[in-house]
Amino acid sequence: MAKKAVVLLSGGLDSAVTLFLAVRQGYECFAISFDYGQRHKKEIVRAKHMALLAKAHFKVVGLKFPWKGSSLTDKKLALPANRTAREIKSRGIPSTYVPARNSVFLSVAASYAEAIGASKIFIGAHSEDSSGYPDCRIGYLKKFAEAIRLGTKRGVEGKLSVEFPLIEKTKGGIIKLGASLGVPFEFTRSCYSAGAKPCGECDSCILRAKGFKDVGVKDPAIG
Amino acid sequence: MAKKAVVLLSGGLDSAVTLFLAVRQGYECFAISFDYGQRHKKEIVRAKHMALLAKAHFKVVGLKFPWKGSSLTDKKLALPANRTAREIKSRGIPSTYVPARNSVFLSVAASYAEAIGASKIFIGAHSEDSSGYPDCRIGYLKKFAEAIRLGTKRGVEGKLSVEFPLIEKTKGGIIKLGASLGVPFEFTRSCYSAGAKPCGECDSCILRAKGFKDVGVKDPAIG
Repeated sequence: MAKKAVVLLSGGLDSAVTLFLAVRQGYECFAISFDYGQRHKKEIVRAKHMALLAKAHFKVVGLKFPWKGSSLTDKKLALPANRTAREIKSRGIPSTYVPARNSVFLSVAASYAEAIGASKIFIGAHSEDSSGYPDCRIGYLKKFAEAIRLGTKRGVEGKLSVEFPLIEKTKGGIIKLGASLGVPFEFTRSCYSAGAKPCGECDSCILRAKGFKDVGVKDPAIG
Repeated sequence: MAKKAVVLLSGGLDSAVTLFLAVRQGYECFAISFDYGQRHKKEIVRAKHMALLAKAHFKVVGLKFPWKGSSLTDKKLALPANRTAREIKSRGIPSTYVPARNSVFLSVAASYAEAIGASKIFIGAHSEDSSGYPDCRIGYLKKFAEAIRLGTKRGVEGKLSVEFPLIEKTKGGIIKLGASLGVPFEFTRSCYSAGAKPCGECDSCILRAKGFKDVGVKDPAIG
């Protein structure tokens, strides 16, 4: 029987590559997405689609926090727009940072992993060519992984660990890996906005475009 | 202006003492409780009452996970009953362990702390005279605190930390501290069951009774 893995799946490119990697590594994958009041709620549909294509199980967990604090969840705040990749990298933590998001997501994933007897939790975080979120850095993820190892039943038993296989890759490197795994990039959606088509202006669109350009591949996204 | 603290508040004794301690230390306290499908949902009412008595702000966060895995959230599983404190301590992680509960609670607290600009998160976890939950041990809490320091905006800025002031105290020691702070123990509720009166048989009732006995104080709980 295949070992089980919980995979955080957002509908974007990085987590799709992570899911296909986990499947390739032989895990029976249980993907979870979160409905946390994000503007770009349509990413959840994309996540479900991707999970089906990867032959993974899929669940949406609703998290209704009674506070805001991010331009990704508060439409009254403007999204950063038309920044170059260099500006995104150099200007610190942007307004799209969602307070403690990955800690919440990983904790819920750990709870799910305990409930179903999974041995891995996969997260597609990376810090190169990213938006400078503190919860996407390797130092944080290593500490969090240790906390899960010490603070869960399966962790204490040596049966559960957190994996972040993309952490040191560039966006281009992630795209190359995804291509080699057959990830259907056309169904991924990275844009932070709620529009029918990706805006092409938000940090996430900019970094995605740079990634494809860096490796000389045309982005096949359909919207 | 007083510095702000987020305090995890369950309606039980330990978190009430922690809240009164944080208030005594001069923090403007923002207490949060979780509605996570626990049997003893009435603890939330007790938590609200305690927050009012401590002159703290209060919020309930709903967390509806689409899985179970604990006798505290699944009424089809039996609660451990009539175990001695020694048995509770020696028999490993009990069925009342809720998978990754403190990781989820602390992560949500970190999100809240970021949103309101708090500088501390208080949790009343302790491992002496406790139920052997891995997420109440000092090693775990230290790692988790480091993860929050590295993985949140305020943490990175050196403005947010996690405090667990009861961690090395016995239940009796916590009761003594609470008495010195004027905690109204009569309004706390520790029992895991949903009954009108504490059952007196669950691990939590047993450990509470032992704590009061150890320090020679009568438990004033009213139900």
